[in-house]
Amino acid sequence: MQAYELSATEASKQIASKTLSCEELARSTLAHIESREPQVKAWSYVDRDLVIRNARELDKTTPKGPLHGLTLGVKDIIDTKNMPTRYNSPLYENHRPAIDAACVAIMRNSGALVVGKTDTVEFAAGGRNAATRNPHNLRHTPGGSSSGSAAAVADRQVHLAFGTQTRGSLIRPAAFNGVYAIKPTHGVISNRGVRAYAPSLDTIGWYGRSVQDLLLVAHAFQLPGFDHAAAATLKGLKIGLCRSPAWDKADIHARAALMRAASRLEAAGATIIELALPESFSLLDEAEQLITRSEGRATFLEEYIRFPNLLHEAFIALVENSTRITHTQLVDAYDLAAKSRHIFDKLFGKALDVILTPSSTGEAPEGLQFTGDPAFNAIWSLLHVPCVCVPAGKSPNLLPLGVQLIGPRFSDSLLLSIANACAPIIDSNEILPLD
Amino acid sequence: MQAYELSATEASKQIASKTLSCEELARSTLAHIESREPQVKAWSYVDRDLVIRNARELDKTTPKGPLHGLTLGVKDIIDTKNMPTRYNSPLYENHRPAIDAACVAIMRNSGALVVGKTDTVEFAAGGRNAATRNPHNLRHTPGGSSSGSAAAVADRQVHLAFGTQTRGSLIRPAAFNGVYAIKPTHGVISNRGVRAYAPSLDTIGWYGRSVQDLLLVAHAFQLPGFDHAAAATLKGLKIGLCRSPAWDKADIHARAALMRAASRLEAAGATIIELALPESFSLLDEAEQLITRSEGRATFLEEYIRFPNLLHEAFIALVENSTRITHTQLVDAYDLAAKSRHIFDKLFGKALDVILTPSSTGEAPEGLQFTGDPAFNAIWSLLHVPCVCVPAGKSPNLLPLGVQLIGPRFSDSLLLSIANACAPIIDSNEILPLD
Repeated sequence: MQAYELSATEASKQIASKTLSCEELARSTLAHIESREPQVKAWSYVDRDLVIRNARELDKTTPKGPLHGLTLGVKDIIDTKNMPTRYNSPLYENHRPAIDAACVAIMRNSGALVVGKTDTVEFAAGGRNAATRNPHNLRHTPGGSSSGSAAAVADRQVHLAFGTQTRGSLIRPAAFNGVYAIKPTHGVISNRGVRAYAPSLDTIGWYGRSVQDLLLVAHAFQLPGFDHAAAATLKGLKIGLCRSPAWDKADIHARAALMRAASRLEAAGATIIELALPESFSLLDEAEQLITRSEGRATFLEEYIRFPNLLHEAFIALVENSTRITHTQLVDAYDLAAKSRHIFDKLFGKALDVILTPSSTGEAPEGLQFTGDPAFNAIWSLLHVPCVCVPAGKSPNLLPLGVQLIGPRFSDSLLLSIANACAPIIDSNEILPLD
Repeated sequence: MQAYELSATEASKQIASKTLSCEELARSTLAHIESREPQVKAWSYVDRDLVIRNARELDKTTPKGPLHGLTLGVKDIIDTKNMPTRYNSPLYENHRPAIDAACVAIMRNSGALVVGKTDTVEFAAGGRNAATRNPHNLRHTPGGSSSGSAAAVADRQVHLAFGTQTRGSLIRPAAFNGVYAIKPTHGVISNRGVRAYAPSLDTIGWYGRSVQDLLLVAHAFQLPGFDHAAAATLKGLKIGLCRSPAWDKADIHARAALMRAASRLEAAGATIIELALPESFSLLDEAEQLITRSEGRATFLEEYIRFPNLLHEAFIALVENSTRITHTQLVDAYDLAAKSRHIFDKLFGKALDVILTPSSTGEAPEGLQFTGDPAFNAIWSLLHVPCVCVPAGKSPNLLPLGVQLIGPRFSDSLLLSIANACAPIIDSNEILPLD
């Protein structure tokens, strides 16, 4: 087994015991990236010498914790000092931020090795797609906008990678690439140094190859609750099976993945409850679109004014409010979202511990033009709630499928604990639907 | 009259007609700043040569509009290329952002001349105060955290200046310094490149010497509604006189300023309606504090982890959640805020055009230790609504007093139009209370 193939936990153990150096891991990682990049195209920037230099520095310092030397990809809408941050926009071709985004600085401080910048949909919002391909089948999209981050983790090019979600940019790619991901509660991680799209929804999250990997990062961010949360167990866990208002859009594979996960969890001792959301929740997808587009107006005004002839028409449409959203509609959308957050959180308690729902409409679509439908993500983004994607079988095309576990706002640590208990039951290579 | 003394409108006219050059205005401005800085201390950074160089460049380009050559101060939590951005924090002594914040880039693109960075309370949040003094009486605070911006505009050192408000950091200093200010609807101006404190509340605004000055900037940001808003007139304008839940904290001068403004507006043809807010609004101040402190936890985590021995204890307390805020309390605060926003906006319509309420508890406090109580600001910050501060007389100490005009969310352009109609009636040098 090559060093790059080690799980984060195993690599961490070997680095701590000095049986593996950060430089060895870095060199193995870089060699793997070099061999795979022509096909997968996960990266917008990797500075080989810088990575090796940083790895050597890590080898000279005493590890602060389990992230020491682990490899990290950073979505290219997140600021990094000593590397470009281009947003996949021609307008920012030469942009070099002076300091790291807060999330990157925190990870570096924990000893993580930043390997490079991962390709993204332009501004994580629209316009140009990433060049990235799905490592499970290069003819399929890895999803977007966190395309490169999800693909790099899936292809074992890095242990961990940052992505972001405004509509469905983090969880959907996780499902398409067969990796784990958490989108934390909105606001729990500082967005400082992360290019904004719709600030009331933009949320940093991360990918890993297991829930344990996700937990390593969660601890670095001191996500609240870990000091109190007892480890969740499946026995008696009350799981709400939620088809969500987007159920009509789920294909046969997505449906099979959800139902298989539910029946396996039930067999393992959990209680499955059919959960129908209030009727008004069917309006949330449209409300989310409306808010995203409206906030994009302020976000892209600078580029609209300064580079009127260079800015992609997708962003011009946002600034010019091409869909003619009125302020009344916008205020109604904000107020509906807030009311729904309150209603959603109240579902949890004695009768319900967690929700189980699809991560995507199905397998990754063929081609790179369409990064997939965020119908199973936008509603949760709008509700600000934490979501964890767990791989849950494969389609007959051998493309990954996923499900999501979701809790109320600020239950991130408990949710990860629940996901940790559920993952061994759900994660599988079985081809769905089973005959 | 020296060039720096010209109103923005007059300077703009003279620059357009080439009777005044940008360089002449810049030199006059710099000379005035040089003479006043030892007393007022509004600035954390002014690069004289850079300002003159930029002014010369402006003289060589065709004016794009009325902001061409006008002087602008930028609160030192807002990124500027080619100048430091220090947040009044020793941790960022050498920080030089690679690019301008979006708001600065937009103003530069409109031809505004960035004169320098204005002093601020540390991170606009707590810790160290600005060194700035109130230009009306150097023994008094200019308020905070936008201390330098408000003082610089009041002292005619610049035409315009950016500030920010999370609790009461923009409007309160406007009142204390006798200048105009607008805190727009939350989210209408992109916060990109502005150091965050509590992102769900942080709002960029600006100071000017008149409503006309405020409008110049509002147009540069293409604040929505200007194409539709008919100019407001006082005749029949329905003004809600709102003592606000903080009325007990208003001193005799603040009360007199509000009552005088109301009676003058009534005499000028407006209809004054006594407006009592719903009982539940008395909980909003505490909710705002709770949200600000909680969001500060994520905001300062990076510095807390990286510089544990250097970070001011005010921010350590935030990260360590020293007030033991629970997630239930936080969620309740968010949901109460959202519900109150909905209720507040519904007050407006046929029965009510605008609200008139105090800007501060009274005159600027003596000394520089205490920047004043945000009791008359925090509630409106939490409601996300646009607020305009209008000077409204002076205290017997000859310190300025102000009142606020407030509208529902996204009514910014209409609110400015109303403020423009009200300002000539309200603004005065009268000493209050009148005998």
